[in-house]
Amino acid sequence: MTGSDNGAVAIGIDFGTLSGRAVVASVADGRELASAEHVYAHGAIEESLPGSGVRLPRSWALQSPQDWVDVLKHAVPAALAAAGVSADQVIGVATDFTACTILPTTADGTPLCELDEYRERPHAWPKLWKHHAAQGQADRINAVAAERGESWLPRYGGKISSEWAYAKGLQLLEEDPELYARADRWIEAADWIIWQLCGRETRNSCTAGYKGIVQDGQRPSREYLAALNPEFADFNAKMEHPLSALGDKAGGLTAQAAAWTGLNEGTVIAVGNVDAHVTAASAKAVGPGRMVAIMGTSTCHVVNGEELKEAQGMCGVVRDGITKGLWGYEAGQSGVGDIFAWFTKNGVPAAYTEEAAKRGISIHEYLTDLAAEQPVGAHGLVALDWHSGNRSVLVDHALHGAVLGLGLQTRPEEIYRALVEATAFGTRMIVETLVKAGVPIEEFVAAGGLLKNRWLMQTYADVLRMPITVLTSEQGPALGSAIHAAVAAGAYPDIHAASEAMGKVERNAYVPDQARADAYDRLYAVYEELHDHFGRGGSRALHTLNEIATEAAK
Amino acid sequence: MTGSDNGAVAIGIDFGTLSGRAVVASVADGRELASAEHVYAHGAIEESLPGSGVRLPRSWALQSPQDWVDVLKHAVPAALAAAGVSADQVIGVATDFTACTILPTTADGTPLCELDEYRERPHAWPKLWKHHAAQGQADRINAVAAERGESWLPRYGGKISSEWAYAKGLQLLEEDPELYARADRWIEAADWIIWQLCGRETRNSCTAGYKGIVQDGQRPSREYLAALNPEFADFNAKMEHPLSALGDKAGGLTAQAAAWTGLNEGTVIAVGNVDAHVTAASAKAVGPGRMVAIMGTSTCHVVNGEELKEAQGMCGVVRDGITKGLWGYEAGQSGVGDIFAWFTKNGVPAAYTEEAAKRGISIHEYLTDLAAEQPVGAHGLVALDWHSGNRSVLVDHALHGAVLGLGLQTRPEEIYRALVEATAFGTRMIVETLVKAGVPIEEFVAAGGLLKNRWLMQTYADVLRMPITVLTSEQGPALGSAIHAAVAAGAYPDIHAASEAMGKVERNAYVPDQARADAYDRLYAVYEELHDHFGRGGSRALHTLNEIATEAAK
Repeated sequence: MTGSDNGAVAIGIDFGTLSGRAVVASVADGRELASAEHVYAHGAIEESLPGSGVRLPRSWALQSPQDWVDVLKHAVPAALAAAGVSADQVIGVATDFTACTILPTTADGTPLCELDEYRERPHAWPKLWKHHAAQGQADRINAVAAERGESWLPRYGGKISSEWAYAKGLQLLEEDPELYARADRWIEAADWIIWQLCGRETRNSCTAGYKGIVQDGQRPSREYLAALNPEFADFNAKMEHPLSALGDKAGGLTAQAAAWTGLNEGTVIAVGNVDAHVTAASAKAVGPGRMVAIMGTSTCHVVNGEELKEAQGMCGVVRDGITKGLWGYEAGQSGVGDIFAWFTKNGVPAAYTEEAAKRGISIHEYLTDLAAEQPVGAHGLVALDWHSGNRSVLVDHALHGAVLGLGLQTRPEEIYRALVEATAFGTRMIVETLVKAGVPIEEFVAAGGLLKNRWLMQTYADVLRMPITVLTSEQGPALGSAIHAAVAAGAYPDIHAASEAMGKVERNAYVPDQARADAYDRLYAVYEELHDHFGRGGSRALHTLNEIATEAAK
Repeated sequence: MTGSDNGAVAIGIDFGTLSGRAVVASVADGRELASAEHVYAHGAIEESLPGSGVRLPRSWALQSPQDWVDVLKHAVPAALAAAGVSADQVIGVATDFTACTILPTTADGTPLCELDEYRERPHAWPKLWKHHAAQGQADRINAVAAERGESWLPRYGGKISSEWAYAKGLQLLEEDPELYARADRWIEAADWIIWQLCGRETRNSCTAGYKGIVQDGQRPSREYLAALNPEFADFNAKMEHPLSALGDKAGGLTAQAAAWTGLNEGTVIAVGNVDAHVTAASAKAVGPGRMVAIMGTSTCHVVNGEELKEAQGMCGVVRDGITKGLWGYEAGQSGVGDIFAWFTKNGVPAAYTEEAAKRGISIHEYLTDLAAEQPVGAHGLVALDWHSGNRSVLVDHALHGAVLGLGLQTRPEEIYRALVEATAFGTRMIVETLVKAGVPIEEFVAAGGLLKNRWLMQTYADVLRMPITVLTSEQGPALGSAIHAAVAAGAYPDIHAASEAMGKVERNAYVPDQARADAYDRLYAVYEELHDHFGRGGSRALHTLNEIATEAAK
């Protein structure tokens, strides 16, 4: 920090799926003075529209912009009050958002869903990241791009997700062309919230690159878009805007936003950011070769590299995508914690759930206690962690999971353990793929809800043969935003310095055990063989099963 | 039947693992007039010896000869009384037994365990079929036979089981040589019980062939036996005796046995037989090409053929083994009902077991009700039914089970269904292997405990693309014995005629549904691919997992 600790604080605001959290952090050392959470009144809107009650089709997921503004109105003042600091001490504010959560607005940024005439039109509302109703559009986006050999396609593992800006935009056009025409702007919530704070539109380089297909300064061509749908040819115009680097100043707090938040007008506002990517700052992992894994229901991996390399199956490779001046690699495991949750709900008998209840621990803790006792490989099992398909490195959602080696002696905790191990093997596959492609991975930093399972973390260290550093803040994204706010306010020369001073990690919290690591090498070799056999063309068995099931369900 | 119905009856006695059952059947038409069961006082002896309390080592399983005699004393008179027939109406008695259940006796047939000086010696007692402590001996029997290229080995799928006569005999020699020397006779319980009934030793062609390695009239050579252990060279002498054909008369009931049973002295006694094989008679399946599957915790398949063919992975191919003059093929699936039982115990959550209890049905019935509703293949799953290894056709107990195609939407009843289907696929693999080898299978007859699950039986019909005939007697083995008794007594010219008159089946009780059968063809193709990949050398994955687990458990 330039200058001594003068009591300066920065505010980070993390907009999640069901709530928003504000944290007040000391600019000098990142100490979290207080935090506050505001739960969205409308949560994730998946059944019917607020007010009108209009029913939503299957696979839809929306949000209400008013809920986001309410986080500014309630969580920010609450956190400030809890911290016992004055508005004068706040040198900057930054935010991070789920992505791609995206909405249509008028030219002045008014959400179409807030115009009376459009309130009852589903397409007028922000589409939440997990809105999956644009799969048909995504399939065409990918087929046409592959056919035309679009140069940007390989940078997204060959697959543009139905969750991203173009698929959702094309769905808007094709299902509600009037609203599409009315939408002057098509904007990430990450950028929209900044517009509300500082009164001007900005576009951040992270969502533009990972969700908006900006590569080498270009968006997909007019010709390509016209090939998808002639009416879609000028879609880029709804997003066109100079990009801002992460940690840059977007502007100063407006009078209205000052009134909402209780902060001073003119307080520095940083450009928008994304929850996973901003966590690299709180995890002291903005330098090249430091991978951050945000481990929860699914796992997102982000790591910076100094060079552009073609690594198989990334979610995206984006210049300035995590940190200015570096190539940001993002990878993902579609199913991790939700595989364990599925198993505890569907595959564990009453005797186990009753015993866990009796001991006053969760079924996860009980299974972990039982599973942790065995030597590596004693269960004779290996699983494939593809219950939600495979994002990285195979980019194939027709794949599904498997458990092999079952015997009449196999117990539930052994299957649970095999599933945990499979997700660790999946992570190792991603790390090794990057390293082989020439993207060094020198440190592995873990964040997210799975951190609380210490045996699981030790297993990851053993499987990866790498020490694991852990993020020690419980508000990883919000603290990451606060770090970006400090940079935008000029308290640090860049995000590297700010992260070093304000980030919160325990280095080498888990160190691999040599004997277990050796034993896991043998199991990993089996996993790798099955991974390649079923995932890389040796066998079409899993695809055939998926085809049979899809046809049978018709 | 020669002559009209004169009220003649035959008695069949089935000696099982935990009890013996006697049935009184009309010789004219097989009508079962009555049956009675006697539960063994000592059951399966697996912990300690009766009387002395001497502890048994792991994997041991013994029985008491007195329990068998008690079946003669109690079940036979009880069945006779319940049937309301007189001893004069009984024209013959036949028995069937578990095999290989085998014991050491003196030259006059006295079990060594009934001599005071040996009562406390575990090796003096009959070894029950499921005594698995001779695995080390079996491994050597197989290794030496393979090394020497013994001609009989391929007729047993390349593997002599640890359950059979030679492995158990070699264990006796090597662990208690004094008793081995004292054992003048080493005799199947199936033959020993006949000795008790008619006072003379006989040896039946079924156990001699399937469990005693008699092929082309020869037992394994003296040289081979000496290669196993020099002291074992003359082992054959303990079993040598002319073989009797199934359905032949062994002798007449002795005065003592008449006193036990309440039958007339001199009543015709048939030679011994085995529970699975004798069922072919009650299932009207003694002609060539009629396969009987006894479906329970495991499944045993027996079928007659007119020619000797080399079919992969049979448990045994034995001339006169099921019916005189034909080649009897026996195959087996090591795990069937016990895989379903394992799953219901380990893989079904409380919500399911509670709902089943609430409805007053078994968890199997509840899962079946839920699973039966889905179209074929809608679950997207295929399983390998190798939880107990694979007996036929791969003869590989290092293999283990698997479930592939799992997703977060997969429900317990879908996995249950996939396991049931896998066992049906395993049966189809056996049927197709025999047919390809030139052993025609023209009819499939089902018997055993799984018959009560009608949806399972329909699934087997659909998977096999064959109508399924079912045995309608609840005392299949005992009725099969009664049929053999009728032949021994001369009421029918041969077992074919007796079986036709006295057997009990419902022909084509299940008929394949064309659409489901077509759909199952696609799933079976996936099963076949996985079966061959993991079972026939494409991948060593399951073997590696087994090796890792075995080493880890050390």
